Formats: sequence, C-alpha cells, structure tokens
Amino acid sequence: MNYDKFLAGRANWIKGSALAEVMKKAAELQSKGKSLISLAAGDPDPNLIPREVLGELAKDVLASVPSSVMYTPANGIPELREEIAEFLKKYEHVEVSPEEIIITVGGTGALDLLGRVLIDPGDVVITENPSYINTILAFEQLGAKVEGVPVDSKGMKPDALQEKIRELKSSGQKIKFIYTIPTGQNPMGVTMSEERRKALLEIASEHDLLIVEDTAYNFMKYEDREIRPLKALDKEGRVIVAGTLSKVLGTGFRIGWVIARGEIRDKVLMEKSPIDFCAPTISQYIALEYLKRGYFKEYHLKKALPGYKEKRDAMINALQEHLPNAEFTKPIAGMFVMLFLPENADGMAFANELMERKGVVVVPGKPFYTDESGRNTIRLNFSRPSKEDIDEGIKRLAELYK
Amino acid sequence: MNYDKFLAGRANWIKGSALAEVMKKAAELQSKGKSLISLAAGDPDPNLIPREVLGELAKDVLASVPSSVMYTPANGIPELREEIAEFLKKYEHVEVSPEEIIITVGGTGALDLLGRVLIDPGDVVITENPSYINTILAFEQLGAKVEGVPVDSKGMKPDALQEKIRELKSSGQKIKFIYTIPTGQNPMGVTMSEERRKALLEIASEHDLLIVEDTAYNFMKYEDREIRPLKALDKEGRVIVAGTLSKVLGTGFRIGWVIARGEIRDKVLMEKSPIDFCAPTISQYIALEYLKRGYFKEYHLKKALPGYKEKRDAMINALQEHLPNAEFTKPIAGMFVMLFLPENADGMAFANELMERKGVVVVPGKPFYTDESGRNTIRLNFSRPSKEDIDEGIKRLAELYK
Amino acid sequence: MNYDKFLAGRANWIKGSALAEVMKKAAELQSKGKSLISLAAGDPDPNLIPREVLGELAKDVLASVPSSVMYTPANGIPELREEIAEFLKKYEHVEVSPEEIIITVGGTGALDLLGRVLIDPGDVVITENPSYINTILAFEQLGAKVEGVPVDSKGMKPDALQEKIRELKSSGQKIKFIYTIPTGQNPMGVTMSEERRKALLEIASEHDLLIVEDTAYNFMKYEDREIRPLKALDKEGRVIVAGTLSKVLGTGFRIGWVIARGEIRDKVLMEKSPIDFCAPTISQYIALEYLKRGYFKEYHLKKALPGYKEKRDAMINALQEHLPNAEFTKPIAGMFVMLFLPENADGMAFANELMERKGVVVVPGKPFYTDESGRNTIRLNFSRPSKEDIDEGIKRLAELYK
Amino acid sequence: MNYDKFLAGRANWIKGSALAEVMKKAAELQSKGKSLISLAAGDPDPNLIPREVLGELAKDVLASVPSSVMYTPANGIPELREEIAEFLKKYEHVEVSPEEIIITVGGTGALDLLGRVLIDPGDVVITENPSYINTILAFEQLGAKVEGVPVDSKGMKPDALQEKIRELKSSGQKIKFIYTIPTGQNPMGVTMSEERRKALLEIASEHDLLIVEDTAYNFMKYEDREIRPLKALDKEGRVIVAGTLSKVLGTGFRIGWVIARGEIRDKVLMEKSPIDFCAPTISQYIALEYLKRGYFKEYHLKKALPGYKEKRDAMINALQEHLPNAEFTKPIAGMFVMLFLPENADGMAFANELMERKGVVVVPGKPFYTDESGRNTIRLNFSRPSKEDIDEGIKRLAELYK
Repeated sequence: MNYDKFLAGRANWIKGSALAEVMKKAAELQSKGKSLISLAAGDPDPNLIPREVLGELAKDVLASVPSSVMYTPANGIPELREEIAEFLKKYEHVEVSPEEIIITVGGTGALDLLGRVLIDPGDVVITENPSYINTILAFEQLGAKVEGVPVDSKGMKPDALQEKIRELKSSGQKIKFIYTIPTGQNPMGVTMSEERRKALLEIASEHDLLIVEDTAYNFMKYEDREIRPLKALDKEGRVIVAGTLSKVLGTGFRIGWVIARGEIRDKVLMEKSPIDFCAPTISQYIALEYLKRGYFKEYHLKKALPGYKEKRDAMINALQEHLPNAEFTKPIAGMFVMLFLPENADGMAFANELMERKGVVVVPGKPFYTDESGRNTIRLNFSRPSKEDIDEGIKRLAELYK
Repeated sequence: MNYDKFLAGRANWIKGSALAEVMKKAAELQSKGKSLISLAAGDPDPNLIPREVLGELAKDVLASVPSSVMYTPANGIPELREEIAEFLKKYEHVEVSPEEIIITVGGTGALDLLGRVLIDPGDVVITENPSYINTILAFEQLGAKVEGVPVDSKGMKPDALQEKIRELKSSGQKIKFIYTIPTGQNPMGVTMSEERRKALLEIASEHDLLIVEDTAYNFMKYEDREIRPLKALDKEGRVIVAGTLSKVLGTGFRIGWVIARGEIRDKVLMEKSPIDFCAPTISQYIALEYLKRGYFKEYHLKKALPGYKEKRDAMINALQEHLPNAEFTKPIAGMFVMLFLPENADGMAFANELMERKGVVVVPGKPFYTDESGRNTIRLNFSRPSKEDIDEGIKRLAELYK
Repeated sequence: MNYDKFLAGRANWIKGSALAEVMKKAAELQSKGKSLISLAAGDPDPNLIPREVLGELAKDVLASVPSSVMYTPANGIPELREEIAEFLKKYEHVEVSPEEIIITVGGTGALDLLGRVLIDPGDVVITENPSYINTILAFEQLGAKVEGVPVDSKGMKPDALQEKIRELKSSGQKIKFIYTIPTGQNPMGVTMSEERRKALLEIASEHDLLIVEDTAYNFMKYEDREIRPLKALDKEGRVIVAGTLSKVLGTGFRIGWVIARGEIRDKVLMEKSPIDFCAPTISQYIALEYLKRGYFKEYHLKKALPGYKEKRDAMINALQEHLPNAEFTKPIAGMFVMLFLPENADGMAFANELMERKGVVVVPGKPFYTDESGRNTIRLNFSRPSKEDIDEGIKRLAELYK
Repeated sequence: MNYDKFLAGRANWIKGSALAEVMKKAAELQSKGKSLISLAAGDPDPNLIPREVLGELAKDVLASVPSSVMYTPANGIPELREEIAEFLKKYEHVEVSPEEIIITVGGTGALDLLGRVLIDPGDVVITENPSYINTILAFEQLGAKVEGVPVDSKGMKPDALQEKIRELKSSGQKIKFIYTIPTGQNPMGVTMSEERRKALLEIASEHDLLIVEDTAYNFMKYEDREIRPLKALDKEGRVIVAGTLSKVLGTGFRIGWVIARGEIRDKVLMEKSPIDFCAPTISQYIALEYLKRGYFKEYHLKKALPGYKEKRDAMINALQEHLPNAEFTKPIAGMFVMLFLPENADGMAFANELMERKGVVVVPGKPFYTDESGRNTIRLNFSRPSKEDIDEGIKRLAELYK
C-alpha cells in the first residue's frame, strides 16, 4: 500500500535530523564489534546521577501512593510545581507562581507546546546561529522559517540581531519570537553575558517580540559566578521559559516545564490536556522527592557538578595540548565545546573519517546552522565520556586534524 | 502584558474540555470537605495494579542499568518493541514487526503524532458519534473537522457510515481517515461486532480511506469471546493502530504505541524525534520487564480482569435494580456504561444536581458528541470506584432520576 | 475519476452560497416561461449607467492606445490612481497618496487580497451581524472564524463590540481585524452614525485591531448629509479600505481598490502580481476617462442618484402602505432594505413561497447572519428593479405576509 | 503605525519577483530619457491585435446590452463557454462540455484558483525547471514547495521526472500535481513532443498524480504541425487545463479559463464566486463576439500569426548571424527564445550591463529556475518588439557577449 497520498501537506515540513546519520553509522560500527570513543552525546553522565537513590524513591512512591500510577493534573502535581517555584527562586533568582508553571514531557515537549501555540505556518522565528538542531527541526515542522543570528563568545550579538530584525521587517517578514539558549548554548557552549542579556531584552521590547528562553543547561554551571536567566531580568513579562531537569535527573525521565502567563499559559494548558494528559507520573514523583529532600544540593551541586567541571577541564586541556593552534569555545556552562576546523575544512567529512579511522565519534556542527555557514565546525561533548576517553578522543582527533 | 497578539491563528482551534468544568467543581466540593462518590474516572483501579511489583522493577532497573536514566531511541527500546510485537501476536492476533512499532507518550501521544502527520487544516475525520472527547479535541486543534457516525450496541453503523461518506463527498468534502475505538468504546462502552469490523474495512477500502484504530480498551475484555482487532482483520495495510498499556500498568506511565508502515511510520518517527525524543525511559523499562516476566498473565489477566468484571457486574446489577426502566449499554469490554436519561432530559444539569445534592460525580455524555445530539446521556465509569461505591452511587443517581 | 482525494484540506472551507439556491430556482422558473419580479439583485441599474458613453470611451481607447490591450502595472494605471486619489479627496474627505492605492479586480478582489495577507487559518474576524455573505464566505475560505456584532439603525453597536472582544479575548481567541460596511450596509441598509464611527475607531485603538472598511455603497447616498468614511476619521492609520466603482460604472467592469500603507500595501502588491497581474485594462481606462472627464458628477450625481433615490422612496412608501405594521430599515445609503417578518417566521420558506405563488424573488436574510439569528429577515433590493416592479413586488409580498 | 504584526504568517510566503528589479531599472532609465530596445516583454504585439475591431465590439455591446455592465454568472456567460468549447474542439482537438469550462480573470487567475483548491501548505508541486516565474510565485504563496524537472528541446524529460518523483517519495514527500506548459514553454520556448506528452500522462497515471496543463501559448504556433494538448490525449480525466485568450486578444482583457470536472470544477466555482464574482463582463463579451464572428481565423490565424512567425525568424536569424557559436532554443511556438551564455557567465550581471551600456533590456533566466542552476541564461522575447528592434537588439547583445 502506498501511504504518501494520505500524508498531510504539512508532513512535508518534517525533516530527519542530519545527526541521525552519524549516530546510525556509529551504531553499525559498534554492532560489528568496533570499540568507539564517543564525544557525540547530548546527555549528562549516568554515573554522576544518584540512580540508586532515584530507584528507592521510585519504589517507595509506587508502593505507597496509589495515584503514582494514575494521571496527574495536566499541569503537573501541585506539590511539584510548588517545589519548582521555590527551586527556581533559590537557585535561579526567578520568581514565579506555581500556577505559571506547567510540567511538560521534557524540555523538548515544552518547546513543542509553545511552538504549537505561537507559530503559524510561514512565521519567522529568530534563533542563535548555530542553534539546537532539534528545536530548529521542531519549529520547522510547524511551518516556521528559522533565521539565525551570529554568536560569539558572549552569546548572540545584539548588533547582528538588530540588523536581522530590520532586514526581515524591511522585506515584510513577520517575526514571531526570539528563541535563545543563553546559558551553555548548544552547540556553541557559550554563555551570554549579562550586558547582552539586557540588550536582548531591550531589543525584544523595542520590536515587541516575545523571547523563548531555553534553560536546558542552567544547572550545568562551572564557575562561581552569578548568571541570571533572562526571566530573572525580565520586567515586562516578555520571556517565556522552557526548562528541564534532564541534566540533573537524567534525560530519560522526561520532566520539563513551561513558565508562562496569561493567554499563553492558558492556551498551552488547554492544548496539552488532550494530547499528552500529563508528564509521566512516576517521573514527577521522583522529581518532587528529589527536590523536596534537598538532593539537588546534596547530589547535584556537591557531587555531580564538580565531576562535570573536571571533565570540562580535561577537554579544554586536551585541546590546548594536542591542538595548540586550533580555535574552540571555552564553556563556563553546559556540556559542549565547539571546535573550529580550518576555514575550508569539511566537518562532515572530518567526523566521518574520525569515526572510521580513529574510532572517535563527534558531531559535525553544520546541521545546527540556519544557513550555509558552519561547515568547518565540530561539536564536542564532555559531560558523558570519562576523562580518559576525553583525553584519548581529543588526542586521536588531533592526529587526524594534522 | 497582553499576550493574545502573539498567539498563532491556529491556537484559536484549541478548546478546553467541557469535562474540565465538572472535575473542577468536584475538586472544589472536595476541598470544602464534601465526600463524593466518583463514577467519573477514566482510569483503571490503582489497587488492581501490582504497584509494589512495579516499584521493585523500577528500583532494580535504575540501580543496575545506567541507560535507564538516559534517552532511548526515538522509537523506543528495541527489546520493548520486540516484547510488544510478541505480546500483540499472542493476545491480539496481530502480527507486526518490531520495526512497525513506535513507542509513544501514551495512547494520546500516539494519536497526536498520527494527527500531525495525516491532518491538514480543513480535513474531515470521521469518528463514532459519540467518540472520545480528547481525541476530538486533539484533532480539532490540528484544524480537523470531526464528523460523527451513529453507534448502536454493535458499534458504528455501517449504513450510516456509507451515508456520511456519500454526503461528505457530494458536498466536495475531503475525508482524511476514520477514527474508531472498536472495543469497549469510550464513552459508549460498546464493542463492534466482527461482522461490522469487516464491513468497516470494506467501506474504507471502497473509498480508499485509512482507519486509525484506537485499542485503548483492548485489554479490558470481560467475556470469554475472541474479539479480533481491525488490525488483525486488515489485509490491505489500511489500519493504523494507536495502542497503550495505560489500562494495564496505569495511566501515569505514558506508554503507548503507533503501529504503522511505510511513509507513515517513517514520518511519525522523524516527526517525533525532535519533539519528545522518547517515551519516558523508566516507564519503558517497567513495561519491558512486566511483559518479559509474564506479569500480564499473572497480574492482569488472572487478578485485575476478574476484579474489573465484578465491578462491571455490580454496575449493571445496580442499574437493573435501581433503574429497571432505564436504557443503558452493557459493556463486554472497556470501563464505561452509557446511561440514557429520558429524551428531553439535560445530562449536564442532571450531573450538576447529582453532584451537589447527592454527592455523586458522573460525566455528562454531551461533550463526546460531534453534533447537537446526546444531551440526555451520562457516562458511568466502573473501573475505578469500589463495588460499594458503584452500588451506592447508582442508588443515589436513581433517586434523583425519579 | 474520483477527484476528492486531490483536493486540499483547506478546500473543505469553501462553501457554496445559500443564495445560489434561490437564484437557481428563480432561473428555473424563468426558463419555464414564468415572469418574475426580482427584488433580489445586488447590482445598480444598468439603465442609470451611461452605457453609450462608456462604449464610446472603450472604442476610442482601444483604437488609439496600444497599451489598452496589454497588462498595466500590478497596482494599476498611474493616472487612474491619481484620479482616484483626487476623487476620494473631493467626494470622500479621504486624503491618500496614489501610491497607497492598489487597483483590484473589484471590491471583492480587494477583500480577498487583504484576507490572504492578514488571515491565518483559525484567526477571528469580527463583522457586523448580519454582514455581506460573500465577504463571510471569502474569509471563511481562508480559514477565518467570523464573529458577528449586532447592528441597529445606527450601525454596529459599540457596546456589543466591546463585549464581543472581551468575550473572545477571555477565551483566548486571537482577533485579526474588524470588517465593517459603515455606509449603506449590506444587507441591513443602515448607515453608521458618526458618533459610532468614532467609537469604533476608539475601540479598535484600545485593542490594537485593524479595521477593514468596505466602502462599496459610499457613492449611493440619498440624503444631503455628510457621511465621512472611517478612513477620513482615522488618525492612526488603522483603517484599510476596500473600495469599488461597481455601483457607479456597473459591477461588470471589476474595478476596485485597496487603500493601505506600509507593509500591508507592499505585501498586497507583491501577492497580487503573480496571481492577477492587473485589473482589466479596458475597465481601468474606462474608469480613468470617466473620472477625468467629470462624468461622476455629470452622470452619477446628477442623473443616477436621483433615480436611485426615487426607487428607495418607492420601496419605503410601498412598505408603509402595504405593510403598515411591519418593521424594516430605512436606508439613507446603499441598495437594500431589510424587512423583519414576525419573530417566529421562516424567511427561507417565505421567500420560496413568494417566488412560487406570487412570482416575486427576494433574498432571505438568514445566510448573512454569523449565528443562528435572523431567520425572520428578508433583504429587499431597490436599486435594480423599476419603481413599478418595486410597488407591485411589495404589494404581492404584503399579500403573502398577511 | 507598524503593520507587520498584523500580517498573517503565510504572508511570509509572498515574495516579490526578481524580474521587478529589471523592469524597475528599465523604467528609471527610460524616465531619464534613455531610449531602450526591449526584448523583455511577456506580451503579444498590440499592433497585431485588431484593436479597432475590438473597440467597435465594445461600443456595440455596451450600448445595446444592458447586462454588459453587470455581473455575469460566476463561471462566465453561457454563450461564451459554448463558443470556447467549440473553439477548443476545432482548434485544439479538445472535447469538453461548456459546463466543464469556468471563465477566469486571465490564465494566472485560473492557476491561482486551482492552487487554492489543490494545494495545502507543504505540498510539493512538480514543474519544469525552469518554469514560469509567476506560477512558481503563486504556488509558493500558497505554501507549496516547487520542485523542478529538467527540460531539453523536446520538453520535460520523462526519465528525470520519474527520478524526481521517486526521490521525493522516498523521502516521504507528498506530491500534489505536475504543472507543465507543454507548448511554447515560458521561459524555454520549447514544445513537448507528442511522445513525451504520452510518457508524461503515463507517469502521472502510474503515480496517480494530476496534471495542470498551462496552455497559455497554444495559439502561438508557427509550424504547420499538429500539436495536441495533453488534455486531448488524456483518457483518464487526469489533466486540468488553465487556458487564456491573452495572446490572442491582448493580455489586458483578463480572460482565461479552467477546464475541470467533478469535485474540482465544483470547488473552483464555489471558491470563485465570493472572491471575484466573474471575469470582467465587457472582456467576456468582446471574447464572445470575437470567437462567434470568426475573427480568430480572420485576424489571428491569417494576420497575427504570420507576423509573429516573421519576428521569430528574425530573432533566430539574428542570433545565428551575430552569435554563431551560442546555444539557444528554436521555438516552434510561444514568444520566447532561451539563450545560454557560457557556463560560468552571470546572466543577471549580463542583463544589467546590456541595459546600461547597450540600451537593450532582456530578462535573466535565473529567477525562473527552481534550484540554483540557470545562472547563465537569458530569456529573449520576440513577440512584442519590431523586427528591426529584434535585429538591432541581438546585434548589441552579441557585442557585449563577445
């Protein structure tokens, strides 16, 4: 049977991820017994997560709380929303009422819900260039046109943003919102300076645009420096947040949230009810107990973060040692370093060769770019691999590089 | 700040559920200390679910499997897809390859993904009238026009379906697919006869329409009678399945699936990756172990189903005793009985009065109807309440009825 | 061959006009030799149009101007836009630059272009209730949801408008613009008072909504009273105009215009170029010469308008004489009188019976309503029929009415 | 006032034509008094059109037929549809009933109506590569993705079409229809061989795709050779026609047609009524009289076509003389020759320089291409300029070329 005639026209906007190819090839090599070092992950380290503790929480809750196997309210367990409100106040300087928080199926679920409520086919969404590939794909599925604004070590460039907005407006393009990952940006690894955060808010205000702030990496900060989210600096209610506990609890629990007010909050909630009912209940309970019992401080801040920091240092050191002349970003937050190959190099080909000849898997940066630039970039993950693998991986990469 | 200007035009298609009002009112009364009997649920009974066993599974997996806190492949853990393929073969006579199974965030997640791949704004979807309110809302969010076909005790009426299709076609309306819940239909509680299932397949074939089969209640069957899913009778590949373990494991785990082939399967998978990554990992592992260890037979078939059957009988008996002249459906599967009040009665008003004066919560059937009919209907749930509550609830209902 | 599978989903939004039935039946009766009096037209009187003069203009232009058979610029012949700018200044108190005028294929073409540039599927458009059926159908084709605001003898009611906006906003509905026919409204025949015009502008300003002003009947005014268009009262640039010469030159020339600025003007022009190139060239030249030579004053104001006024008076007099107790509107502009049958009467059935039994064709008002009201209304046209037919038609109508 | 926030998301799909720049520049130069030779037109020659005769027709009709200034039925004057049916039978071997013909506002109007009924946002439309720029823009406005198939001297290549369809299907893309200009293709000037026409019909049948046949240049044929339209070869009803009299009567009359059956015909008609009412009435009457009185033969076939043929020959001869080594198409129909500059040449820059330095206006072919190819092409029109201008224009072009 030929199914294509049944597909919606808009299904033509659904594109596969260019990364799927890399991952598929890696899986094939591994299935043939090849041992690979992966610097390609987008996950935290399962060994820096207190899995046994989470297991105990799960067991207790399932046994003792009948509703732990049932639907929760569509916006999530009330106590969890209260805990998150307190948590955000304490660790993020963000003051929100629990009613403004909607628990979602991960941070990607939050972004999809927001996209469905905000984006009409044809609408322009401005992002950093490069930006997180899955968000680009998710918004494009909805018919959005994604326009990127260049990034340097201090984040999205305000001047370039102004210029992009002016250019779009002068050609009659309607802009829906600005999507940004200000902290530990994926894939660049850079963190937006507070000055730029303020400039971004001003530009959004000037042009009356919403900002969707993706705080996915806000709990992966390695310096003793206060980094206030846009939401904490926002005086107008212009910032909508897509947040997640994925980097704290693990990506598999699918616990994220939208922070929004008024009509947007109401619409997201109405929209969400019939399509996903609620984020997974057991995950919600685990998150609730984790936060309530102070495990964020006990396990994440005290134990996990130092571990990630060591790995970050290991990667920077390895790059400086093995590739003294190469350009790369030096993250103070997040899970990624962006490496720039020489200008005319092809990151796709390099990644392929690196996998085949050196057994090291990395992610080419190109698919994260919203235009034809970025061909010479490589995204390196340091959160998932061991320090040893980081060192060995970079060493091998450097061999090929030369 | 005024957010409505930022909303997408299509956000106007998002409507709140009329049931939310009923539930909100019930919650208010309860918060004032009023004790209520609820015959309004859409859940299985958490006490017929082996929660302690599930808790042990969760604990073991989290402690011993590092990947249990990480993303799984977008279509789900391979072993789980294999288990489900075997499970469907054994218990449903459905032969599918694990590659045709995509694990989703519950059955509603499966339907949303299918809707997004199949429905263009304006497309007509045919359903039973009445049909599951959340599916109607989910498809309407996508811009679908839902057209219902009357149901009797044997399910959707083939003649009425033919007539509906003819009528729609003659006015130039494009039909996208037929959505049906053939077994234990929500809210009617009826199960489609095999004769009708075959007629439905023939009609779909004649008009070259897809069928989306919602098998949500396929594991809630109370008679020793073989009920073959449409998918098992489908020789053309015309049936797409949205399935779930929600009635077996509990609704909170958010484990469902799409069964589809070819372009539809591929598109659902491509679409899904950037927006929900994967169904919750811990839920997938619990489902995997539950099926692998034979708990479906041990716990669900042997212990839970007899319990639900007793409750079903309790409700039928109570209705026959207290409302000897009333018309209601007699389910052989599912979780609901549809009660028909006298023709000119208003089910909404009745449900309100029943809650306020008698402390019994029921769901008016009207919001499940795709047209202006069904005003006099009441949906009664027997899966969640105790036998005692069922009896007492129906008794009180009968008092008001008279 | 079965074509419905090739149709777009959005083609399901295209609906036939309920008036088509009436007209078809009239045509059938006429083809059987039945003589009918029509009070159903939507046209001016071809005998009040200086057709011979227009014919001479056409002949001269075609013979002497080679470009009269070629495309014009997409926004129309520059001289024509200049003439219209002057014309609007002189007769409408509207000051616009020729660059803000885009010549379109009639007023309906202007509305369609505006709809395509402004309406996303799902968007709400507010209109008078009732409003012009073809505009409602045109906007619904584009996926708009049309919400009507009641009208009385002074036009759209400001209080009801405020309430409607509040109600829509409170349920999270996004409103795109307000469409109004302030002068000689079709089908009501009423003209909005200046007080209400100002109130409408204020409400639009308060909620930051555009107004699309349909000035189709602005050159059909029968009292010596200044009626300033919304555009003339608009200080913010909030009013977009859809205008036409159809009531002056005849509906068949298909000469209309959009008046808009900035991005909207630019987009309409860009959109228009590849889909209709230009309004018909010969019609543009006829319009140009007609205006340039002062024929608007000479023929329309001095000869046609007095003729229409006589007919208007004939209709009002006939209604007062034959239906002394009936309620109907008393137009100071436009081409229509709305007659209200007794509240429980069915205008559709009445119109049918009137045609069959009395040989008089009228248009039931119901299809012009945006909700279920207006069942008892009848739209009567006085511009097209002769005074004798008006009198005789109303007499027969009165016979049936009683 | 800032209007961009009021624009629809889909308005972002509206793009300006790259040709507008060329034309604007030409107009500027002319307004500065520069005399230009234009080989850039898309029009027939107004001096080969019997304008005086058309003027007489217009005058007679306007004076004697009252309905000549009123709306016609939405599908056009019945007699005109009958005349066109006979005309198509006689000159095109196409047998259609008058009921299958809908008179539209030019051929572009026909294509826009068809697009609106067939295209959902995201749908793929296959065209020749290059194809007519305004059709590409019109379909893109509707959210279509246009995919081109290479053309050689015999028209669209069947193998390349098969490959394109396979490639699109394998990536899950939904194709809506194939748009083709088989005769005198714009901009290539080539005419599809009958063998290829049959192959195209077979491929469309194999993949169950509609064909939209643009017959804009079917009455501009210069060889004594029978060229049967796809519609005449179509046994399945798979071909929808967009036709026009623009090349016969002149482009300004805006008389075109759709030929379609069943649901598509019905939907186009329903859609059309409220948005353009009818094609311009005076144009319809002129067309009717022109056809009825045999002027097509008398004026077009006997007088105009020989004139166009002479110009075509003049252009071919000039190219052969002045550019003996250049590659260009040799049209047997239509109004265009495509000239291929050396492979690495930039047609845009060439056209610019030619205008500025040599005073010759031509159209770069690039904007007609659906991909990044065609940079080195120039479209030359021979229907509008005089033979002298053709010769002089090509001479100057050749000077720059060298």
